[in-house]
Amino acid sequence: MKFIIEKDILLDKLTNVMRAVNPRNIIPILDGVKFDLKKEGLYLTASDSDLMIQSFIDKKEIKKIEKTGTIIIQAKYLLDIIRKLPNEDINIEVIDSLKILISTKNTVFNLNCLNLDEYPNINFEETKNPLILKGNILKEIINQTIYAVSTQEARPILTGVNIKVEDNMLNCIATDSYRMSKKTIKLDKSYDSIEVVIPGKNLNEFDKLLTNDNNVEIHLFTNKVLFKYDDYLFQSNLLSGSFPNTQSLVPSEFKFILNATLNSFREAIDRAALLTQSKDRNIVKLETTESGVLISSYASEIGKVEENVLLDKNTDESLVISFSSKYMLEALRNLNEEEILILINSECSLITIKSVKDESLIQVVLPIRTY
Amino acid sequence: MKFIIEKDILLDKLTNVMRAVNPRNIIPILDGVKFDLKKEGLYLTASDSDLMIQSFIDKKEIKKIEKTGTIIIQAKYLLDIIRKLPNEDINIEVIDSLKILISTKNTVFNLNCLNLDEYPNINFEETKNPLILKGNILKEIINQTIYAVSTQEARPILTGVNIKVEDNMLNCIATDSYRMSKKTIKLDKSYDSIEVVIPGKNLNEFDKLLTNDNNVEIHLFTNKVLFKYDDYLFQSNLLSGSFPNTQSLVPSEFKFILNATLNSFREAIDRAALLTQSKDRNIVKLETTESGVLISSYASEIGKVEENVLLDKNTDESLVISFSSKYMLEALRNLNEEEILILINSECSLITIKSVKDESLIQVVLPIRTY
Repeated sequence: MKFIIEKDILLDKLTNVMRAVNPRNIIPILDGVKFDLKKEGLYLTASDSDLMIQSFIDKKEIKKIEKTGTIIIQAKYLLDIIRKLPNEDINIEVIDSLKILISTKNTVFNLNCLNLDEYPNINFEETKNPLILKGNILKEIINQTIYAVSTQEARPILTGVNIKVEDNMLNCIATDSYRMSKKTIKLDKSYDSIEVVIPGKNLNEFDKLLTNDNNVEIHLFTNKVLFKYDDYLFQSNLLSGSFPNTQSLVPSEFKFILNATLNSFREAIDRAALLTQSKDRNIVKLETTESGVLISSYASEIGKVEENVLLDKNTDESLVISFSSKYMLEALRNLNEEEILILINSECSLITIKSVKDESLIQVVLPIRTY
Repeated sequence: MKFIIEKDILLDKLTNVMRAVNPRNIIPILDGVKFDLKKEGLYLTASDSDLMIQSFIDKKEIKKIEKTGTIIIQAKYLLDIIRKLPNEDINIEVIDSLKILISTKNTVFNLNCLNLDEYPNINFEETKNPLILKGNILKEIINQTIYAVSTQEARPILTGVNIKVEDNMLNCIATDSYRMSKKTIKLDKSYDSIEVVIPGKNLNEFDKLLTNDNNVEIHLFTNKVLFKYDDYLFQSNLLSGSFPNTQSLVPSEFKFILNATLNSFREAIDRAALLTQSKDRNIVKLETTESGVLISSYASEIGKVEENVLLDKNTDESLVISFSSKYMLEALRNLNEEEILILINSECSLITIKSVKDESLIQVVLPIRTY
């Protein structure tokens, strides 16, 4: 293998492919990145056995292909090496099957390579009828749901985002059992029904690749998912197990309907949260008042904070409810519209939050009993 | 105490005074900030018993002084509270001697206070004949030396910067015994001789206050130093013990004089350092070549890197010397001039680095024996 390539072109693709390299990986060969130079261009592949990313650099973007070939380069330091090279053309050349020279005019890196034979055979499989979504829309779906996935390995299925296709509707749900985020999108046409759970950490890596509104093909299998986007193939294993049924969680009618301005409500909770920064105790109280609600919190050693938020209510009945400031702030952070609805039935029922205008996103936060 | 003040004015001064509050402090009363409202304005004081900072806000900058008084407010969360308040006038009012209300139109923080009687009496003493330096010049002195102080408590005296005044010369030296930085400044006039060692961590906090070229008065005592700058009094205890004599460390003649371009030399070492990121082994080798030097490093598992740097030398004799890439990069980072001199006598002598033009800063890095 021998070729010459511009630094920035290689750096861009390599940065994204390396997202699949896991520093805590225990399989030595997966510490490497596969460089596969063919007549048509360069394929870069990396994997942590749960996630596989491949990128392609077309021959038109390569300055000179002198000799095709395949090699596995140790990923450790590789990105830093390419990043810190001068802004010149980079020569890459295998000098025996286990050494690679990466050089510019005055600089030569001579790196040990890994054994090509040990590298696993990675299949990027496609379905005949992939879902198609714009990159920016998929990015929004991921961002609006992923924050609610569980970080606890106790219930592994909750560390993923539940994706459900029924006819022309796409449902995406994440929950850690204390709060939930649900996004519903109308698709361009009807598809076969399928339901999968994609690991949140892999979706998070895919999110970093999404930089424009080009189409993403989503190929859903029962055990894996393949995203095709620009020059990238991004394949993730799925989580197995059954995702909790959240269909009947959100009631259709509410006793208390609070119509608030996102900013004033969020800032009040943000300030009340200041006194609740300890990990275990971040409880904020909401009480209805004549003109709106009073948001308050209390920390025995420090003091207390109270804030009046003016808002419209559908009833004069009084309500006192407590919740986690952290979960509420994370839910509010993902709403784009200025006018929001806070929907509650009683002091021990779920709190539902959504935009007045945008019905596609529903967020739910569990109350905390304080007595 | 009762007054009204603009948020930004209070936030700015409070942020800087709070630099003296140490989260690892074990004296409960020093977790507080002293608010002392007098007719002439508001004095803010904080201390960690090793470092004391006081700031003054003139009455002209305070919207309304309704009642003077003194109180100690818990520092924890206080900055966050002020920062997150709406951009409105802030009302601050003591409601009994141990509670304070901090409020804006819709928000009320009710904070517990600490016992005023327990707060130590802090004297900010002045000498009759302080050194005067411009703020930006003092900032440069601090930045160019402080990186070389020791972070090890084994020899406490080395965790400080040695400041020596003789006639009209100011010498500032920091060393952790592996490298040294020495800055020499000509003063505006002659002063009494004095030598002190200021704790590096306190100098580092003072550095953050320095934002303009206003005069700084430096009041040097045998056991403390007071900096007067803008509306701030910044007083630090000194380190006791004798600072190593570095007078005879740097020879006046050198066998090898390398005349390099700062950028090309630094980048070569930066790249060579890539393969030496492990904490214990960050050795880079410099070898003279016909046209300059070869910078190289080697990591058994990863590979090696070699880079030619073109430079002028005073001799064709050959030299091979190794050093810590980390220490060399930190030394180079503080040189402002493009043309630098690297001065060496032998493979086991100190490496001296300085600008061709600016003689005020001398940096020294110890070589590492590799055989």
